[in-house]
Amino acid sequence: MSKVGFIGGGSFGTALAMQLAKKGNEVVIYDRDSEVCEDINKNRKNDKYIKGLSIPENVKATLNIEEAIKDVKYLVLAVPSHVIRSIAKSISGKIDKNVIVISIAKGIEPETNKRLSEVIEEELNNPVVILSGPSHAEEVAIELPTTLVSTSNDMKYAEEVQELFMTSSLRVYTNDDIIGVEIGGAVKNIIALAAGIGDGVGYGDNSKAALMTRGMKEISRVGVALGGKEETFYGLTGMGDLIVTCTSLHSRNRRAGILIGKGKSLDEALKEVGMVVEGVKACKAFHELNRRINVSMPITEGLYSILFENKNPEQVVCELMGREKKSEVH
Amino acid sequence: MSKVGFIGGGSFGTALAMQLAKKGNEVVIYDRDSEVCEDINKNRKNDKYIKGLSIPENVKATLNIEEAIKDVKYLVLAVPSHVIRSIAKSISGKIDKNVIVISIAKGIEPETNKRLSEVIEEELNNPVVILSGPSHAEEVAIELPTTLVSTSNDMKYAEEVQELFMTSSLRVYTNDDIIGVEIGGAVKNIIALAAGIGDGVGYGDNSKAALMTRGMKEISRVGVALGGKEETFYGLTGMGDLIVTCTSLHSRNRRAGILIGKGKSLDEALKEVGMVVEGVKACKAFHELNRRINVSMPITEGLYSILFENKNPEQVVCELMGREKKSEVH
Repeated sequence: MSKVGFIGGGSFGTALAMQLAKKGNEVVIYDRDSEVCEDINKNRKNDKYIKGLSIPENVKATLNIEEAIKDVKYLVLAVPSHVIRSIAKSISGKIDKNVIVISIAKGIEPETNKRLSEVIEEELNNPVVILSGPSHAEEVAIELPTTLVSTSNDMKYAEEVQELFMTSSLRVYTNDDIIGVEIGGAVKNIIALAAGIGDGVGYGDNSKAALMTRGMKEISRVGVALGGKEETFYGLTGMGDLIVTCTSLHSRNRRAGILIGKGKSLDEALKEVGMVVEGVKACKAFHELNRRINVSMPITEGLYSILFENKNPEQVVCELMGREKKSEVH
Repeated sequence: MSKVGFIGGGSFGTALAMQLAKKGNEVVIYDRDSEVCEDINKNRKNDKYIKGLSIPENVKATLNIEEAIKDVKYLVLAVPSHVIRSIAKSISGKIDKNVIVISIAKGIEPETNKRLSEVIEEELNNPVVILSGPSHAEEVAIELPTTLVSTSNDMKYAEEVQELFMTSSLRVYTNDDIIGVEIGGAVKNIIALAAGIGDGVGYGDNSKAALMTRGMKEISRVGVALGGKEETFYGLTGMGDLIVTCTSLHSRNRRAGILIGKGKSLDEALKEVGMVVEGVKACKAFHELNRRINVSMPITEGLYSILFENKNPEQVVCELMGREKKSEVH
């Protein structure tokens, strides 16, 4: 069994940490929030992020990042996309070069619009693995069956991480298309936010299914333009994750969308959700990226106009539904 | 405006009939159930199939099929797949050869395993159009935005039907891949039934998303083997309809699955749902068809073993989740 460090004690990180601990690994979670650390260490809970957990004794939380990276074999970066670089920078030179660094965030870096594996590789000379797939933390924590996908620029590390996370409830597959996995995971949050807005405006299941179908094509178009394989987008990390994000109330992207659809401002919605909503950052990033790749992204652009140009959600969703297309174009 | 006949006063037929009537068409619905006819004619409702309707005055219901087919320009067959042939036979020679016959059922004919357009064309010398897509009747009836797809062996008829059904809430697209549209619509009911069983067994959103992603590949494999185009399966009539059927409580296929997953027998589940569950018939048909096309259909075969071989639902769903696959194969 190994020592595994987690940077960030959010919902998904904690849920995964619990599974590794139950397999006998020694897990140390760094979090900057002293209440989270105390809740984990004293109460074996993490009520701020998921209610009702019973965290194993071999999960330790710490306010000191040095403790969470010391002598680890695997280091999981369980932080949102916009802080990946600063976290990686802060541990540069402090971990052995053989430590496998695993990112579980779904997004791309704001400003640079780089994939998270690219960001980490720029800051650390370590093997980098991306873990993605349709995996709400709330269900992982209570061991409902969940699939994950492990990918890397060097698949031997992806396979090692696959073994690390495999349990009776977590099934981990490998996929060598790291670009496809990362881009699919980022863009699906945009579509989920848009689908949530449709829900909030009062549209039903029929129109959401249509939006998701078009969203799937948007993910695929963008992803292929950026170098991913089309089949990846129709797999677990693309279509699978899109479905779970658009249809589950566990999704904070969808929840934020519902609030915006009901008339709340972006700031009000983000405050009410209380956690990072990756789709908002992804929307801005892909809107910018699109100047370079220049593909048709009607849902991303429609969402951008709602979030950042004060366009009326109902009007935008209506336009997205009613775009003049007489033949079903793929 | 035209006279349009409907054979069958079920939920989807009634919802579409209402939309055509609101556009000014004269609509006559034949149903063999006198209570349904009376409810429509006297109360402007159809409580047996959808509660709370307010059916326009220019929709008339009749127990006499001759009245519903007399002088119509369009005839909508709004009956389940297993009675399409007998209905077509019964009107053969009684309608003008220019009447466009429209089928809205999603399934294939039991025993022969033929597509419904093939069945109709064998019995009638009329143009045949198939209308499909993610369209729960309950939402069509209250005019929530919905997309439909119109297809035919001769696209000029598909385009005419597209015009007929277009409203501000119904957006109709054309697609010339009639095989893909019909096969996708039939197989998605199998996946929805399986997904419902997973729900009933107590699995969560993560595993359902994984099952649907694999189901989508199953639909595509089967459909391509039968002559459909892959892109059709990832469009509104495949993926779109799969999503709406697997995630909405409006779906009778999903509801039947939930009951079976909770331990009810197939007969008990069908009785409780009270309407035809196309996925049951489709499962049997594709299980038989598979002797000829011989493609991998793990979900269909797993469902078959639950429905017709008394295998334990929990065990089968567990096997489907846990199939040994180390790489995400497409």
